[in-house]
Amino acid sequence: MANVGGTPRGPYRSGIKRREQIVSAAAKAFGERGYNGASMRQIAADVGVSPAALLRHFQDKEELLAAVLEWWARETAALRLEGRDGLAAFDGLRDLMTYHISHRGLLELFIHLTGEASNEKHPARAFIQDRYTGIVSMLVKRLLATAETGEIPPLTDAQAEAEVRALCATMDGLEIQWLLDPAVDLVGLFDFHLDHTLARWRSGAYAPGARS
Amino acid sequence: MANVGGTPRGPYRSGIKRREQIVSAAAKAFGERGYNGASMRQIAADVGVSPAALLRHFQDKEELLAAVLEWWARETAALRLEGRDGLAAFDGLRDLMTYHISHRGLLELFIHLTGEASNEKHPARAFIQDRYTGIVSMLVKRLLATAETGEIPPLTDAQAEAEVRALCATMDGLEIQWLLDPAVDLVGLFDFHLDHTLARWRSGAYAPGARS
Repeated sequence: MANVGGTPRGPYRSGIKRREQIVSAAAKAFGERGYNGASMRQIAADVGVSPAALLRHFQDKEELLAAVLEWWARETAALRLEGRDGLAAFDGLRDLMTYHISHRGLLELFIHLTGEASNEKHPARAFIQDRYTGIVSMLVKRLLATAETGEIPPLTDAQAEAEVRALCATMDGLEIQWLLDPAVDLVGLFDFHLDHTLARWRSGAYAPGARS
Repeated sequence: MANVGGTPRGPYRSGIKRREQIVSAAAKAFGERGYNGASMRQIAADVGVSPAALLRHFQDKEELLAAVLEWWARETAALRLEGRDGLAAFDGLRDLMTYHISHRGLLELFIHLTGEASNEKHPARAFIQDRYTGIVSMLVKRLLATAETGEIPPLTDAQAEAEVRALCATMDGLEIQWLLDPAVDLVGLFDFHLDHTLARWRSGAYAPGARS
């Protein structure tokens, strides 16, 4: 193997590489069979190492899940709508739908884990909950900030949360439909929904605040 | 055991009862751990029978899955919006959200299996796909019939499908949020969304047909 100056070399470097291979194989396995359905034995076989070698990197499946979730959060961090303000920031959500189409495996992983995390005992539940809360509060902040600039009429925190939750729900639901039937026009359906939602926000016809 | 006139008795009757117990335990296990994550051994233990006895009723996990899906379709058959016509039929979807809240286990099972079925190799994929297609075409027919009576302006098949898909997406997404956080006001959020959608349909501001 060629040794590139400044990067780790020898056993340390190959250890990092092997770890990455394992996380990548685990992400694929969790996406295909879910966390509950995937086995450490199969993941080891996919990478081409023994189960014992796998356990030297990750003590158990839960530790491997944590690494996969970390990797997943890193992979999707760029989709945080940075660099745009006001309602235009919400246009960035259209890019997210396009991104899903070219990263089906990541979306399968997310939808699969979210389904599993509907159960209170699932080890990814806290992560999925936090991620959801994080996205909702990020979008709520942006919506409230947009109202402060006068681009849209004022709305309460509760109204903003209701609006953002409904918008996220539609995204998730359309993603599921596209996973079940690739003929579904994920981007087109979402585009219309967002156009309409943005027009409604501009007119101030907000949802009543659903949470007290 | 008391013997009620006209019902099967003896070994046959207790066989039916045991079968029902197994399907019910399997539905719970699939809802909690997914189809992939649930094991025949654990389901047998939950019912209090040996794995061998379980296999006398269901040859393998896939056969048990088929029985669970059949049971689930029967349980939810009443939610088919019968007895209402025109836009009023869509009001029946509000009852569906209320139903979910009092039948969390059934919803967990559905969301869990749908997440798993995002994978092309999952044995419930065809069932979930058919169910989705069935619900979409039932609602599309109702929407087109509503337009024919003049209650809403005319729309094309493709527009009706786009509208119905977006509506179903919002329901599914809100259900997922409620499973992740019971403080989410599933009924209130959906009510507003449906009110607004019905008002939009009345005004004829339909989605463009997304599927050619």
